[in-house]
Amino acid sequence: MKLYDTTMAPNPRRVRIYLAEKGIEVPMEQVDLGNMAHKSDAFVKLNPLMRVPVLELDDGTCISESMAICRYFEETQPEPPLFGRDPKEKALVEMWNRRVELNVYNAVAAAFRHGNPGMAEREEQVAGWAEVNQRRAPEMFDFLDASLGDSKYFVGDYFSIADISALITVDFARVIKLRIGEQHKNLARWHADVSGRPSAKA
Amino acid sequence: MKLYDTTMAPNPRRVRIYLAEKGIEVPMEQVDLGNMAHKSDAFVKLNPLMRVPVLELDDGTCISESMAICRYFEETQPEPPLFGRDPKEKALVEMWNRRVELNVYNAVAAAFRHGNPGMAEREEQVAGWAEVNQRRAPEMFDFLDASLGDSKYFVGDYFSIADISALITVDFARVIKLRIGEQHKNLARWHADVSGRPSAKA
Repeated sequence: MKLYDTTMAPNPRRVRIYLAEKGIEVPMEQVDLGNMAHKSDAFVKLNPLMRVPVLELDDGTCISESMAICRYFEETQPEPPLFGRDPKEKALVEMWNRRVELNVYNAVAAAFRHGNPGMAEREEQVAGWAEVNQRRAPEMFDFLDASLGDSKYFVGDYFSIADISALITVDFARVIKLRIGEQHKNLARWHADVSGRPSAKA
Repeated sequence: MKLYDTTMAPNPRRVRIYLAEKGIEVPMEQVDLGNMAHKSDAFVKLNPLMRVPVLELDDGTCISESMAICRYFEETQPEPPLFGRDPKEKALVEMWNRRVELNVYNAVAAAFRHGNPGMAEREEQVAGWAEVNQRRAPEMFDFLDASLGDSKYFVGDYFSIADISALITVDFARVIKLRIGEQHKNLARWHADVSGRPSAKA
């Protein structure tokens, strides 16, 4: 088994934090995005969509998409459960993970990929789309703050993959100069908590 | 328990097809998107992101995000399993579901929301973003066709939620005048198969 990883992007960090929380060690190989190694013939065979991470199993099966990789380990090593402990909690974890990804992560990523001059050779940039998302992303921080309220994590007192997805998103937002504001008291409290877990260094 | 549904959008259809495959009946209430009922005070309490579908449980818990709703039922009524039968298959189903959503569905939805004059009052439209996605969506049909190859479904011989996601996406693509082409022999064969299942009428 081997995990193709990069420290240059947020999604692979989700897998590393997840593995640290589970106490799982997997042999890793760094893919040099700066050198376009993810577009090499060898890597395209692992993932035709040319994205990192990829988990290669011993039988040669390649699993891409960071959530799918986490799902694989959740099934092979359930403890501690990070996808929920009963049907309702599993549904709420999936809901919050998707809300974070589809509304917050996607806004941050679009603002970055379409607005950062350094991404021009990797993305067919649309300036207007960067602007819309640069405006939407802080509104989504407001949404996260309001949604948390007094709750410890996104699904009550239960730390889950949804918190990991939110952590990589909030930290990634630095690339579009978006940070937790003074008005985001709940989000700041949550961020201090999850950033203090040893897994956050992964 | 009640499912807030609409026949005017693709994601609620995913839930209806899924429920039909599982043989699950849930009381439904139609939300009139044409009348902006999803922006009413009553609906915002169910889902602050103002999107349909929402599953309201008997204890008042509201689950939004169509995949989270399907996940809830997968856990409460596992047979027949549509999210995979073992860890590897579950990971591959998640991978394919995400590949379909993130690359194909999102391209079709962006081309529609940003390019269709009828959506102007619902979306801050960016014409350049519509153009990029109007070009990307057919490439993604090529990708689906190549990925299927001779395989019956997206995960081998196993019909899964990933096929349901692909079906709602391919059918939804009619709104951007994109249809399966003569060159898409694998996709056409797959589409005829999954469209022939009784659930496809849901």
